[in-house]
Amino acid sequence: MTRELHVAVVGATGAVGQQMIKTLQERNFPVGKLTLLSSARSAGKKVLFNGEEVVVQEATPDSFEGVDIALFSAGGSISKALAPEAVKRGAIVVDNTSAYRMDENVPLVVPEVNEDALHAHNGIIANPNCSTIQMVAALQPLRETYGLSKVLVSTYQAVSGAGAAAINELKEQAKAILEEKEFTPEILPVGGDKKHYQIAFNAIPQIDKFQDNGFTFEEMKMINETKKIMSMPELPVAATCVRLPVVTGHSESVYIEIEKDGVTVADVKNLLADAPGIVLQDDPENQVYPMPADCVGKRDVFVGRIRKDLDRDNGFHMWIVSDNLLKGAAWNSVQIAESLIKLSLVK
Amino acid sequence: MTRELHVAVVGATGAVGQQMIKTLQERNFPVGKLTLLSSARSAGKKVLFNGEEVVVQEATPDSFEGVDIALFSAGGSISKALAPEAVKRGAIVVDNTSAYRMDENVPLVVPEVNEDALHAHNGIIANPNCSTIQMVAALQPLRETYGLSKVLVSTYQAVSGAGAAAINELKEQAKAILEEKEFTPEILPVGGDKKHYQIAFNAIPQIDKFQDNGFTFEEMKMINETKKIMSMPELPVAATCVRLPVVTGHSESVYIEIEKDGVTVADVKNLLADAPGIVLQDDPENQVYPMPADCVGKRDVFVGRIRKDLDRDNGFHMWIVSDNLLKGAAWNSVQIAESLIKLSLVK
Repeated sequence: MTRELHVAVVGATGAVGQQMIKTLQERNFPVGKLTLLSSARSAGKKVLFNGEEVVVQEATPDSFEGVDIALFSAGGSISKALAPEAVKRGAIVVDNTSAYRMDENVPLVVPEVNEDALHAHNGIIANPNCSTIQMVAALQPLRETYGLSKVLVSTYQAVSGAGAAAINELKEQAKAILEEKEFTPEILPVGGDKKHYQIAFNAIPQIDKFQDNGFTFEEMKMINETKKIMSMPELPVAATCVRLPVVTGHSESVYIEIEKDGVTVADVKNLLADAPGIVLQDDPENQVYPMPADCVGKRDVFVGRIRKDLDRDNGFHMWIVSDNLLKGAAWNSVQIAESLIKLSLVK
Repeated sequence: MTRELHVAVVGATGAVGQQMIKTLQERNFPVGKLTLLSSARSAGKKVLFNGEEVVVQEATPDSFEGVDIALFSAGGSISKALAPEAVKRGAIVVDNTSAYRMDENVPLVVPEVNEDALHAHNGIIANPNCSTIQMVAALQPLRETYGLSKVLVSTYQAVSGAGAAAINELKEQAKAILEEKEFTPEILPVGGDKKHYQIAFNAIPQIDKFQDNGFTFEEMKMINETKKIMSMPELPVAATCVRLPVVTGHSESVYIEIEKDGVTVADVKNLLADAPGIVLQDDPENQVYPMPADCVGKRDVFVGRIRKDLDRDNGFHMWIVSDNLLKGAAWNSVQIAESLIKLSLVK
């Protein structure tokens, strides 16, 4: 029997932190003690866990004394400052920020894809970018069975990926536009960037800041993280990331090329129908395909619209949808923690 | 000097018909007489043209007596029934429905791409699908200068492409969701299909009905029409078409491969900056890129986010946005009519 663990959630009052707490409860994770941490500003708030009130405390290095597993989702700078402090005190950190994802000493893990990489951890495990997780989870069974030689993705991403304030901005803007009132964009596409644009009834082809090659950091995260998680540094991957007026649920139009010839759409559907963490929703005849509005609150990755390319026998198109706050963040983090227990990696 | 023409607009009270009338006026099209036609249901309505009221009449075969140019946008079955009647009476028909687009005897025209095809017309000229027009207008300069060997597009399409009732549905649903009220989807994704889904705060990967190969008709329109307009029957083209909660303005994430090697992003930008009908909006440093909210009411095709693929020297990514009711429909139709005059094809 697993012993009960002391679990800490850093960023406990944020959109992802709230989902982490909810997911720990839903999964009956063996929590002996729950420490909820946040900035000084949010400290003192009370959160219900398994029917008991837990008071959120300000995160400091000493907060991690006695903690077994710490789930971080409070921004990269908090992770940079406090994750090493948690590790120093004996905790294993599962970090949902981009702070350590490309660090060679840090495994970047989606359990359906590379659970074994957890064995090599040095205290910190990185949780990938939301849009990357759902894509690699769906591509892994295809890669294992048919080989994978190319990935090209265009995303349709929800505002909750930019935090609770972005959700409010979308709703307030939509209301203002419907009532023909004035409004001033203040957050999206990127809180810390120079300009802000209307998101309601619009589509913004920018997520995170631009880097010198013309790709955004979000696009480069999808490209680099996919290669790292799949251990395929040479895999050609390209991404265009777009923010939409959707509250929760990222969608992706994905084109792949596989190595094997002669694979049919039925083969791909059969494979994905039995794959862990994947739900096949693909019945065009009855208009069955994944949509963000249907995925909210579910832990699975939904795949549909699977078609063979009309010009390349080994090219396939598909549409991948998942709750970006769950499989894209909170659930994948808790799932990593479950894997750590399963692999006896928690001391 | 051009003589004044007798112009008919069929579907005069629809979303596109209204834009056609507005565009004829804005372009100072040489209209001597304007005949506005519709179904019996809408007949009797009055529309303002150049300050004068024009009464909409029910479209019948005899409505086209004396008409020089008839712009059709009232659905495929109306075009099937009445376009030949208009031609029989001496009119040239510019048809905005899909009724004749793939007919070998009917030119399918985007003036920036294949204006010369108009010479071969037999009375009917087809206006392509909205999402096809903006894409081929942007790709034509690249194809002319560098050659084109592959096109892969994922669309982000506005509801106005599905008509005025779909715009109402989006707005009413958004209002209901914000007010936490019940609602019943009745139109989108496809009025005539079996099931209807929420469009507000959602993304629906279905535009038009499905065909047997798993692609929708909208996707096959983009594929087949692109090949026909560009006279490249062998060009590999693939499309995934998605409906978004955007009122007007289609966006497209497009990946292309060109034939020439060594072309830079700067080369592509310079070429597009000088191309007819194209506006380059591409300055990542200053967060300048096209967005649907900015394109509404403009006749141009906006291109930005131009990047070289990180794995293929001859691969490029871009983001193409245009007002689907204007360049995607009304303006391209009026532009075809202008080309007919320019080429002395109007008797």
